[in-house]
Amino acid sequence: MATTVVNKKVNGVEIDKLFESIGAMKNLPKLADFRFRLKNRWINCGHNRSEIKNFYGVCQEDSSRRQPFVLDADEPPVLLGADQGPNPVEYLLHALAACVTTSIVYHAAAKGVQLQQVESRVEGDIDLRGFLGIDDTVPRGYKSIRMKFKIQADVPDQQLEEIVQLGPTYSPVFNTLTRGVKVDVSLDR
Amino acid sequence: MATTVVNKKVNGVEIDKLFESIGAMKNLPKLADFRFRLKNRWINCGHNRSEIKNFYGVCQEDSSRRQPFVLDADEPPVLLGADQGPNPVEYLLHALAACVTTSIVYHAAAKGVQLQQVESRVEGDIDLRGFLGIDDTVPRGYKSIRMKFKIQADVPDQQLEEIVQLGPTYSPVFNTLTRGVKVDVSLDR
Repeated sequence: MATTVVNKKVNGVEIDKLFESIGAMKNLPKLADFRFRLKNRWINCGHNRSEIKNFYGVCQEDSSRRQPFVLDADEPPVLLGADQGPNPVEYLLHALAACVTTSIVYHAAAKGVQLQQVESRVEGDIDLRGFLGIDDTVPRGYKSIRMKFKIQADVPDQQLEEIVQLGPTYSPVFNTLTRGVKVDVSLDR
Repeated sequence: MATTVVNKKVNGVEIDKLFESIGAMKNLPKLADFRFRLKNRWINCGHNRSEIKNFYGVCQEDSSRRQPFVLDADEPPVLLGADQGPNPVEYLLHALAACVTTSIVYHAAAKGVQLQQVESRVEGDIDLRGFLGIDDTVPRGYKSIRMKFKIQADVPDQQLEEIVQLGPTYSPVFNTLTRGVKVDVSLDR
């Protein structure tokens, strides 16, 4: 009797491929070493642009993207910019929201939990006296960030708390932000 | 003799307005309290979308943006996505590049230093065994991030190092990432 292989998807995630990747990385950890990168160019005032294309992962350069993703950042008028894009601290909230969401979606899939809806609202408080150098006792960055999730899933309501916590448990951006990471800045002459 | 007021710009930054803002925030610190925010919605698999519009700052709701900025995040095929946008950890590098660049540009302007060019290359190393839950001793997030800047400015070459260091000194995203921040994640029933 022939076996029919169906690519089973949960939350759109191909489960067989997910477990295949996990198995391969368990056996050969260097498959899990990824290096992401971009180049950025200042345009004028608060406006600058990043291009994101290739990255390194599973032991090879990934050049499967035909075109780079282009992201414009700027500041709103009240911060002296021309509002040509979200500002950098708004992009930071987006990176966080996207990553925590994807972590919930993939890890719920791995548990076989089908999600219907995942929505979040994220906000962060910042005292710009830090950035402006007005008061060195004021941190330059966010003082606190809050995320509120609305989730609909095929589980009893009391399990939704467990589902939402998959996000902060596994999210790389959440982990980087809450733990802190070394960032080396240098001049390329 | 009439005084002609010219809106002097350095690096595109209106210097008079910058010092006016700094003066106002020194006198009334609550003008510097900003709250940025977004909403995010999961679409399928690794694909989700943020909308960014209003924020709070200088003691009022800023609703000057007519349309929201819309940002799509996804994962590349090797990470089981459909590549509908940069992935969350790439967005994190963009937030960092944009913020360090803007910090250099604004603080150089405040010092009266005209820049001709600011370009950067940013890369970050991550071991995805963390995200995948393969090994709990592996951090989920970036292990390290490096930024290399090429800067051309109206200063002697030996002062370029000082100019580049304005970035990590004042950047809110750099500070948030390297210091770490509290992120509260909760279920909104």
